[in-house]
Amino acid sequence: MYSYEQLHTFAKKIFIAIGHTEELAASAADVLISADIRGVDSHGIARLKGYVRLWEVDRINAKPNIQIVHETPSTATIDADAALGLVAGPRAMQVAIDKAKQVGTGWVSVKNSNHYGIAGFHSMMALEEDMIGISLTNASPLVAPTFGKERMLGTNPISVAIPTLNETPFIADMATTTAANGKLEVLQRKKEDAPLGWIQDGDGTPTSNAHGVKEGGALLPLGGDREHASHKGYILGSIVDIFSAVLSGANYGPWVPPFVSFIDPVADPVGEGLGHFFGAMRVDAFRPKEEFLQHMDQWVARFRQTTPIDPNVPVQIPGDYERGMEAERLKNGIPVLDAVIADLNELGEKFGVKL
Amino acid sequence: MYSYEQLHTFAKKIFIAIGHTEELAASAADVLISADIRGVDSHGIARLKGYVRLWEVDRINAKPNIQIVHETPSTATIDADAALGLVAGPRAMQVAIDKAKQVGTGWVSVKNSNHYGIAGFHSMMALEEDMIGISLTNASPLVAPTFGKERMLGTNPISVAIPTLNETPFIADMATTTAANGKLEVLQRKKEDAPLGWIQDGDGTPTSNAHGVKEGGALLPLGGDREHASHKGYILGSIVDIFSAVLSGANYGPWVPPFVSFIDPVADPVGEGLGHFFGAMRVDAFRPKEEFLQHMDQWVARFRQTTPIDPNVPVQIPGDYERGMEAERLKNGIPVLDAVIADLNELGEKFGVKL
Repeated sequence: MYSYEQLHTFAKKIFIAIGHTEELAASAADVLISADIRGVDSHGIARLKGYVRLWEVDRINAKPNIQIVHETPSTATIDADAALGLVAGPRAMQVAIDKAKQVGTGWVSVKNSNHYGIAGFHSMMALEEDMIGISLTNASPLVAPTFGKERMLGTNPISVAIPTLNETPFIADMATTTAANGKLEVLQRKKEDAPLGWIQDGDGTPTSNAHGVKEGGALLPLGGDREHASHKGYILGSIVDIFSAVLSGANYGPWVPPFVSFIDPVADPVGEGLGHFFGAMRVDAFRPKEEFLQHMDQWVARFRQTTPIDPNVPVQIPGDYERGMEAERLKNGIPVLDAVIADLNELGEKFGVKL
Repeated sequence: MYSYEQLHTFAKKIFIAIGHTEELAASAADVLISADIRGVDSHGIARLKGYVRLWEVDRINAKPNIQIVHETPSTATIDADAALGLVAGPRAMQVAIDKAKQVGTGWVSVKNSNHYGIAGFHSMMALEEDMIGISLTNASPLVAPTFGKERMLGTNPISVAIPTLNETPFIADMATTTAANGKLEVLQRKKEDAPLGWIQDGDGTPTSNAHGVKEGGALLPLGGDREHASHKGYILGSIVDIFSAVLSGANYGPWVPPFVSFIDPVADPVGEGLGHFFGAMRVDAFRPKEEFLQHMDQWVARFRQTTPIDPNVPVQIPGDYERGMEAERLKNGIPVLDAVIADLNELGEKFGVKL
């Protein structure tokens, strides 16, 4: 078990070791370790080695000149200059928040970026400003559109964070596939099969092989099959792709650069890096703040009271799982897999940092 | 078979007969019959009688004073004054477009409205302005959240329309449930079963009974069951509900007034009428217009070329189905069910209008 501080300090020192300023390294560590503390282990410290490897092959710029390249009063397009997405994300979300302070809402599309950790970190930045936060990103192609067998989209998540007065805030953070990659990794480690509807094999046939994606198959869009409306998951992933990359000038669809350093980006990119999209809406741009927050409290309270199918399994509010994990891990610490600890020790030796 | 003009003229005359001005009646008919021409029969002329019945029980105001009650440079909240949603929708979308012309994007939440036809009509208004259009609405509660057996959400659709240069535009219009109500009506008429994953019965058990919702059950959120991430459909429907109603001051969740006139709205409403949410984003608020449109063309062309599973079933672009229906129906006419024709004749006799 590790504390939040232990993992944060280690990650920050590694980011400094590869050339980041203390400020940028701290910001990147904030995003990265927020995944571990919230129970999204696939997006946290386990990925630190992956980010370092991208830096080693010159795909991460530790001294980025992140700048607005196009703007209106309510919008901006940002060139992240090949920064860590962990660095570019909070910067861009702050621009959205600042625009919202001025004109009610702010919308920022980002190009030339890299993976940005959990989508929910960025959307949640809006909560303390009494704004609704929105965070989208495209990602390495792993998902086949309905009727297709080619990997065309990433797991392209949607996160929306909505403030409340006294109730827990509404914090949605969901991949637009049936199952996120992290869930498959869990099954792979346990040597278990995946439910049908999560994966298809290289021929486009549904498979329960949890290694199906690595073996030439694809993840399936939310819905799972045509009969259960997988075209809607395909639509959602496409909207995320277009807002993140066609608006900004990043790569989209099958051109999105892979997260892994051992696969080179495509030779004929249609844009720069990968893309994100952020939004911030002041709730008092629509109605008086107290009114909105009180009704959000009532919304949350009423949905918690939904008559349950099983009296012991209440209906949840988006964010409940992560909130529960955070409370538990702040108290008892964060478990880290042996394989991840080995990676971290290797990184530590290379850069002279001790975990 | 009926022509677009025949149905449009009839609907317009009926809307005039119940007290609308010629302008408002024409606008409402535009929205209503756009559903028939695009093949979304459940949302078109078949609903005309339902709208009239709502007017008969004083739930529709044919002389509405639709006005902005709160605004910032990029946002507005509109009180639709109990107008037809068919009237309030285009008005509110136009406000979003006008705001976008000024500050890059426009976002409008609407309260005190009624059903607004197909979501896609409103989002598509943005296309001719080279804007991305967004249209959301909440609706009568028919959907149970994951783990719940109570109907808490409507089919709460999401529509996003994205312009292109020469390719067909990207037009998504999807309920956040596995199956829209219209699909169930088709099965009911054919006396066929529904696939598991569409409906649960009154105990919360999955059922293939296509009449399950009418018999006390509920529609299931996109995903269908927990293993296939129905919580994501629940999340999406919730976001639509909150943006449409908690932002605007409309009713949300189980308080949303029913479409049918024979069920009274709840006695303790939390807001006024039902709610919509519209967005318009100028593409040149993010990058030069030609660049965006050319890359959208490339996006559409590349996704059409996705390697298909079956060489005879190509991957589609959102909107293809409706475009195909529109071309076919403009040429050959719109089929109308006998039961619907009987309703229309009844309406015609009542108001002295001939189909």
